[in-house]
Amino acid sequence: MNKKFEIGVCYYPEHWPESLWPDDARRMAALGVTYVRIGEFAWSRLEPKRGDLRLEWLERAIDVLHEAGLKVILGTPTATPPKWLVDEMPDMLPVDKEGKVLGFGSRRHYCFSHRGYRSECLRIVETLAERFGNHPAVAGWQTDNEYGCHDTARSWSEESLAAFRHWLSDRYGSVEALNSAWGNVFWSKEYTDIYAIDLPGLAPAEINPAHRMDFYRFSSDQVVEFNRLQCDLLRKLSPGRDIIHNFMGRTLEFDHFAVGADLDISSWDNYPLGFLEDRSDADDDWRRRFARAGDPDFQAFHHDLYRATSGGRWWVMEQQPGPVNWADHNPVPRDGMVRLWTLEAFAHGAEVVSYFRWKQAPFAQEQMHSGLLRPDGVEAEGYFEAKSAIEALQAVDTTANTKADAAIVFDYESAWAWEVQPQGREFDYFRLVFDHYRALRRKGLSIDIVAPDTADLSAYGLVLVPGLFAWSDALVTALCNFEGIALIGPRSGSKTRDFSIPDGLPPDLPKNLADVLVSRVESLRPDCPVSLADGEGAVRFWREFLVTGGSCQAEITAEDGWPVLVHQGRTHYLGGWPDDILLDDIVARLTTLAALPTVDLPEGVRLRRHGDLTFVFNYGDTAADLGALGLDGELIIGGSALPPSGVSVFRQ
Amino acid sequence: MNKKFEIGVCYYPEHWPESLWPDDARRMAALGVTYVRIGEFAWSRLEPKRGDLRLEWLERAIDVLHEAGLKVILGTPTATPPKWLVDEMPDMLPVDKEGKVLGFGSRRHYCFSHRGYRSECLRIVETLAERFGNHPAVAGWQTDNEYGCHDTARSWSEESLAAFRHWLSDRYGSVEALNSAWGNVFWSKEYTDIYAIDLPGLAPAEINPAHRMDFYRFSSDQVVEFNRLQCDLLRKLSPGRDIIHNFMGRTLEFDHFAVGADLDISSWDNYPLGFLEDRSDADDDWRRRFARAGDPDFQAFHHDLYRATSGGRWWVMEQQPGPVNWADHNPVPRDGMVRLWTLEAFAHGAEVVSYFRWKQAPFAQEQMHSGLLRPDGVEAEGYFEAKSAIEALQAVDTTANTKADAAIVFDYESAWAWEVQPQGREFDYFRLVFDHYRALRRKGLSIDIVAPDTADLSAYGLVLVPGLFAWSDALVTALCNFEGIALIGPRSGSKTRDFSIPDGLPPDLPKNLADVLVSRVESLRPDCPVSLADGEGAVRFWREFLVTGGSCQAEITAEDGWPVLVHQGRTHYLGGWPDDILLDDIVARLTTLAALPTVDLPEGVRLRRHGDLTFVFNYGDTAADLGALGLDGELIIGGSALPPSGVSVFRQ
Amino acid sequence: MNKKFEIGVCYYPEHWPESLWPDDARRMAALGVTYVRIGEFAWSRLEPKRGDLRLEWLERAIDVLHEAGLKVILGTPTATPPKWLVDEMPDMLPVDKEGKVLGFGSRRHYCFSHRGYRSECLRIVETLAERFGNHPAVAGWQTDNEYGCHDTARSWSEESLAAFRHWLSDRYGSVEALNSAWGNVFWSKEYTDIYAIDLPGLAPAEINPAHRMDFYRFSSDQVVEFNRLQCDLLRKLSPGRDIIHNFMGRTLEFDHFAVGADLDISSWDNYPLGFLEDRSDADDDWRRRFARAGDPDFQAFHHDLYRATSGGRWWVMEQQPGPVNWADHNPVPRDGMVRLWTLEAFAHGAEVVSYFRWKQAPFAQEQMHSGLLRPDGVEAEGYFEAKSAIEALQAVDTTANTKADAAIVFDYESAWAWEVQPQGREFDYFRLVFDHYRALRRKGLSIDIVAPDTADLSAYGLVLVPGLFAWSDALVTALCNFEGIALIGPRSGSKTRDFSIPDGLPPDLPKNLADVLVSRVESLRPDCPVSLADGEGAVRFWREFLVTGGSCQAEITAEDGWPVLVHQGRTHYLGGWPDDILLDDIVARLTTLAALPTVDLPEGVRLRRHGDLTFVFNYGDTAADLGALGLDGELIIGGSALPPSGVSVFRQ
Ligand SMILES: [Zn+2]
Ligand SMILES: [Zn+2]
Ligand SMILES: [Zn+2]
Repeated sequence: MNKKFEIGVCYYPEHWPESLWPDDARRMAALGVTYVRIGEFAWSRLEPKRGDLRLEWLERAIDVLHEAGLKVILGTPTATPPKWLVDEMPDMLPVDKEGKVLGFGSRRHYCFSHRGYRSECLRIVETLAERFGNHPAVAGWQTDNEYGCHDTARSWSEESLAAFRHWLSDRYGSVEALNSAWGNVFWSKEYTDIYAIDLPGLAPAEINPAHRMDFYRFSSDQVVEFNRLQCDLLRKLSPGRDIIHNFMGRTLEFDHFAVGADLDISSWDNYPLGFLEDRSDADDDWRRRFARAGDPDFQAFHHDLYRATSGGRWWVMEQQPGPVNWADHNPVPRDGMVRLWTLEAFAHGAEVVSYFRWKQAPFAQEQMHSGLLRPDGVEAEGYFEAKSAIEALQAVDTTANTKADAAIVFDYESAWAWEVQPQGREFDYFRLVFDHYRALRRKGLSIDIVAPDTADLSAYGLVLVPGLFAWSDALVTALCNFEGIALIGPRSGSKTRDFSIPDGLPPDLPKNLADVLVSRVESLRPDCPVSLADGEGAVRFWREFLVTGGSCQAEITAEDGWPVLVHQGRTHYLGGWPDDILLDDIVARLTTLAALPTVDLPEGVRLRRHGDLTFVFNYGDTAADLGALGLDGELIIGGSALPPSGVSVFRQ
Repeated sequence: MNKKFEIGVCYYPEHWPESLWPDDARRMAALGVTYVRIGEFAWSRLEPKRGDLRLEWLERAIDVLHEAGLKVILGTPTATPPKWLVDEMPDMLPVDKEGKVLGFGSRRHYCFSHRGYRSECLRIVETLAERFGNHPAVAGWQTDNEYGCHDTARSWSEESLAAFRHWLSDRYGSVEALNSAWGNVFWSKEYTDIYAIDLPGLAPAEINPAHRMDFYRFSSDQVVEFNRLQCDLLRKLSPGRDIIHNFMGRTLEFDHFAVGADLDISSWDNYPLGFLEDRSDADDDWRRRFARAGDPDFQAFHHDLYRATSGGRWWVMEQQPGPVNWADHNPVPRDGMVRLWTLEAFAHGAEVVSYFRWKQAPFAQEQMHSGLLRPDGVEAEGYFEAKSAIEALQAVDTTANTKADAAIVFDYESAWAWEVQPQGREFDYFRLVFDHYRALRRKGLSIDIVAPDTADLSAYGLVLVPGLFAWSDALVTALCNFEGIALIGPRSGSKTRDFSIPDGLPPDLPKNLADVLVSRVESLRPDCPVSLADGEGAVRFWREFLVTGGSCQAEITAEDGWPVLVHQGRTHYLGGWPDDILLDDIVARLTTLAALPTVDLPEGVRLRRHGDLTFVFNYGDTAADLGALGLDGELIIGGSALPPSGVSVFRQ
Repeated sequence: MNKKFEIGVCYYPEHWPESLWPDDARRMAALGVTYVRIGEFAWSRLEPKRGDLRLEWLERAIDVLHEAGLKVILGTPTATPPKWLVDEMPDMLPVDKEGKVLGFGSRRHYCFSHRGYRSECLRIVETLAERFGNHPAVAGWQTDNEYGCHDTARSWSEESLAAFRHWLSDRYGSVEALNSAWGNVFWSKEYTDIYAIDLPGLAPAEINPAHRMDFYRFSSDQVVEFNRLQCDLLRKLSPGRDIIHNFMGRTLEFDHFAVGADLDISSWDNYPLGFLEDRSDADDDWRRRFARAGDPDFQAFHHDLYRATSGGRWWVMEQQPGPVNWADHNPVPRDGMVRLWTLEAFAHGAEVVSYFRWKQAPFAQEQMHSGLLRPDGVEAEGYFEAKSAIEALQAVDTTANTKADAAIVFDYESAWAWEVQPQGREFDYFRLVFDHYRALRRKGLSIDIVAPDTADLSAYGLVLVPGLFAWSDALVTALCNFEGIALIGPRSGSKTRDFSIPDGLPPDLPKNLADVLVSRVESLRPDCPVSLADGEGAVRFWREFLVTGGSCQAEITAEDGWPVLVHQGRTHYLGGWPDDILLDDIVARLTTLAALPTVDLPEGVRLRRHGDLTFVFNYGDTAADLGALGLDGELIIGGSALPPSGVSVFRQ
């Protein structure tokens, strides 16, 4: 490929006097920006009252950008319906689990299920697509903005209830089938009519996990439907343009694979410092040490995830350029980190990294969110970091896909399953998968994240399937055909799709793949880990008691003699949540078996292969000597000594 | 007596194909089970729609059990009203303090006050009692299930409001009397009409404690009434059968003595690991150490409590057989603990211990709750533990009541009083009583728990009355006549029934019993204990400043010279919440005075006398040498070396 | 001046049999009390039903007090509307942010905006003022009671909404002006009608800070209006009497300067132990050490604050006399502390200190709140402490105002601004100002708190302006004219009144005063302080990156070279939240520059100048040697050795 990495910015012409637009556009182009995202929150300016359409200013803004040689990503403004529309149909507002209506005044104030609001969205998207869909500057569309952000994917509204009943009726056909699937005989929960079923809201005790699981599936499907309506219309009216959505980090309430399937490009909004502070499981010491750098694996995880959700093409639509405004603490990034984050995205295959935002707004909710420019138009630190990243990228003249060493299955339904039924307070699906991902990264592996219905794993030497609640036929077949090393569990295959325990007990796999049975399980207090018979590692949070048959045999055992890791040929089953020491041991065994080359990276140093290039990043606060790590080759960026915040790229 | 201990299980024929029933019954009998509880959640199968009664399957199930020689406890299904009934009368749903309706979908979704629902309960109970009340297999009835579980004893519904006003009218007669009793002149809270009084819900500041106290009394009375309706009907229609309810652990929202008075047998549901994890005051270290054993005193406390609530006859209706599903962490019990818990119940005089449940259900809310059998019908660990317990019990051929060494008064109204007005964050009534109970147990005493209106204490050498908010005449008389050693306080007698400070100040006792006056009180931060003049103990959480007169004199004093423990003859008054060191010191003094034999038990080791047998239990994780403790006699079960989880029984 | 300090008590004749009144009055007078506050919660006794006025008992009570030579402060009973009134207009009840109505049953159950309730208040006040306004015993009025206590200043009711829209219309004139001021173009929040704007309640994400800020301003204005209605009426009907309100500690939801402007006297309710326990930022160690003494600066801060809010005249209306009932822990004050608190108030210029309450009530919500007398009428410890304070005061025969050494600006709007937008979790305005106040006190300074629109600072040698969100023209002019030493920042001047970032960036000051620009900011985790280039101090929680010009130069710099403290002549700007070490260093520099005499006080020892007297107080638990501190003079009270709880007063 000869495709170059490209740089974008998010811009809000409606926030600034029109007289400033040309100079902004000129400065963007001068910096090396090629993409500008605009318009995604502008509904009240595009249609201040019903039918009073004011598209001229947007056209002028697009023209100004076009004249500066910039390409435009146009956002559909459906994340921020204006007040007059909400007043027309107040039942479009989302309702929380307790029945409280979430009102106008911020953003994302709508139910995905609301038919009236869906019509209004189609109307405004059609209007925009007809006017701008063939404008030469318009290179793509962003649908809405950050689906699910602020926990908005699920709503307990009346329209949601009606849609849920309809969805249940479609899924089960009859109330008898539903009662049986859910096990409603338990506690006399049997219904006589699907249309009598409520949303799983407040109740004296726990609501049926199958009921909640279906509500979560339904809610995800509503997001998919909502997005698809816009995609279909945009494809028709604006042919040849990329359709994109900007996902968020660690947002699990809808299936991003399903939404991604309707997009040309998955993008995500990458805020390393904000995410470390407000959605990390790390302890205080880790948060303190990486407070100005971000978690060394969190960004990479999402890069790898969103590379998968739309079949390979992906962007960073919003890149943190300095302090944000929304976490509990919002420090300034360490010098060089914005540049590092930018280059890291490209190392994982991003086509575009777009900074949020070009210029800090002095008013309203995000006035404390930095931009590349200060509110007074003077360059902020982010500007110079972006400049440095762009300059460094000049040295990299081609991009190429990388064959990853290992794959990890990631499944949104499993996240919902273990949210519904953690059984132990610490059992969080994202955390479990991320623990495994991080352990592979500590060994210097490049990783693909793959969907739970993946039918072919032959590209990988190693495949991990932690915590997958239920099997797809495709994946079981893929595992049976797989010739690499597989690590399955804990808790994989422990449920049917109907949220019951499989007849033959977990992990519910063919005996010729793994003749192992989970005879009982337990969840553990964090201060009650189970030690191993040998070594310093331990099982924590979750433990299974494994009974093996046939040629399946124990490889690692607990102090009390119960197997922790078993294998049958190349297939391994892990009966617990490993701590980092045990996980490192397991990864070392498996990579040796798989004959994968590894590097024992210092804490904070991470690498990613990209075609024939190797990118190395230093999130830590001490310098690393790449030569001593055995990492060398023709240096393209940086040097063999990798300072804090440093990036080195070499060709091997 | 020649009555044998008996074993039961909880079984749900409606969860399994009918074809499995006979084999299940056969295996139960083969294990040694004699009682099977069924039916308590089966309303939707007994009456899928109004009036569409389907009792045949239940009759067949009873017959199958009968044919296997098993006795049946039949549950009334009123804890789980079916959806069609809730849809008919949605105002039967409970409402929380904030006014939020708790909907259908779990269990216990009803207000105890709802007259319509009470009628429906009588209808279904009558139906069942008429059909099965004289069936030869039916040995008893369980009313409803776990009253008050999931905080359901109190409801802020409209029907509850109407009933509360009626209750107040009955109690006070006139609004003037109510205003005076509650002190409503304070903050202008005087009412002009009892029927204008609200439930104590949300308000800007604290609501009158007398108002809340009466609402708690009313709520308790509603449970009593609700239960009594079923008892009266069952007594009439199913003569000769035991009427039982299954209480829970540390459930304080209704008066179990009052409910128990209408029963033949009190039973409770004994989940040692779940309770340690979710309703213990112990610190993390204690929880960690006993995570697989349970708190060494929690089970015994409830055994002794429920032995009292129905006049002596009591069961364990549900016994934890392995991990449960409902606590924050759900570990596997240490080997031997299920057996230990079983034997311990019998040591405290249980007639029956019944495991919950026979077979783990693979679906719905409790699919992760273990049973004696796994979902696939294979024996789980609990099965073998039960078997071992049953075998051990063969050696014990008779049962006999034990005269306890000491009595502790336990009073539900006091729990409400100090919930209403803790005055210090740590002042929890259960915790206070349990601290005292545990200290007696550390000395190897066997204890009776007695009601707050007990009129005769002559059976005991030692009586403790901690934290009793107000006196009954009966108890004051009993204390005056008591010839043993009494320990009263802290905070006992500090209120009138109307929730005021007594005219003569606490402890409001006759001077010839205890001429002591609590001149002021204080609550203490946990890090601000008050040291003693001598010794290492301290007063924590709560302290009183005692002024004595007559022959009442200080026995233990604080560093600042104020008395902590005073006595007048055999009556002691304790002016504070003692820490464990001080409590051990006090118990040592009192048992010496009372000439009660004591044993200084190692941590985790506990004993209980039963007739001429002494049972010793090891909750700890190190072995104990009973001989070294001076515990010996003819060994019936176990040996002199007591391993972790071990039980030894000897005849003295 | 020859005005003497005077002593008061709070008394509730309606709580006691009339036969006890004369003796109570006699004992008050004998103790040395001259003021008695009565009536503020008595509405249900004054008007048991609409129009059924019963003023006779109150007249008799006033007469009894009068005959004993006591002066009366009569409270308007509007903090406790009776039930019949609430039932007439239930929409007067306050509503919380989630829409939940806060009902009858405690106190403060009204919306300040409710027009119907305002009319009722005027009616009852008029009734009382007409009857008692010229009674010779009535020396003053207390309006209502503790405005804002229990978070009651803000209400999300329907009447509040209507009033808010009206208020917005008055403030902005047009919806266009409002949209522009709030920056509503952001996230399409533009309104087409001011009367479509909602109260800032629940929403999926953050609501516009400008919207919330205006709601907070509006809510404060409602309190001011509510209070002014009563003041105007009382002034008319009860001429010559002082109009007073009793404020609380650390209550920030309304502007006490604005309410205070309508009063003759500001008073406050001083509960040192309760406040330390429930509204202090101190860590557990500090709370433990001062648990029986109170925070050494909290009382003084409020004395100085409320001395400012009504132009100099101020009282303590309620003084803690022993344990209270409302904090998490309610210990007994250390011997001598009630006396100390009393004398400290006079040292700061109080005219009257009035104990709450004369006699402990045995019933209702505050039955555990101590009084000077026990419920049985016997003297409690507080009585003897008051007596000791009164005796000590005999030695001080005149009072005189003190010229303070330093001033600190305190601004309620800034408290709201940083509540709305902390940007870092720890950024609390009160805490920031209090940290500065405490540092000045550690150096023995006497301090004035001044309003944010202060126009003349010439009385002071040192002025501090921490965290003032926006400038008043008056204050900028005063600072420009100021010839003393000024310390401004952090975060001062960082917003416009419309809650935007100023065009020229913060601190938005004339360059000839301070040529410094805050180029970026960050908030810091508590475990991520920024060290200094020299010394042990650090910046914590909040940090600014300062760019200086002209003659403005760095004085203290951070480890990374960025300035922390800069100065331009006598004006200093502080770019961060200093820890105590840095703050002490800064105060040392500034007091040296200002040539203010300082004393390095031991922890817990504090002093206050009062005319030519110096009061020294020992909150600590070790004795202090005043001579060694250089504190000496003619001893009026106490000695040179200052024991724990001791007070020494000397004339210099
Ligand atoms: Zn965003
Ligand atoms: Zn149960
Ligand atoms: Zn008060």
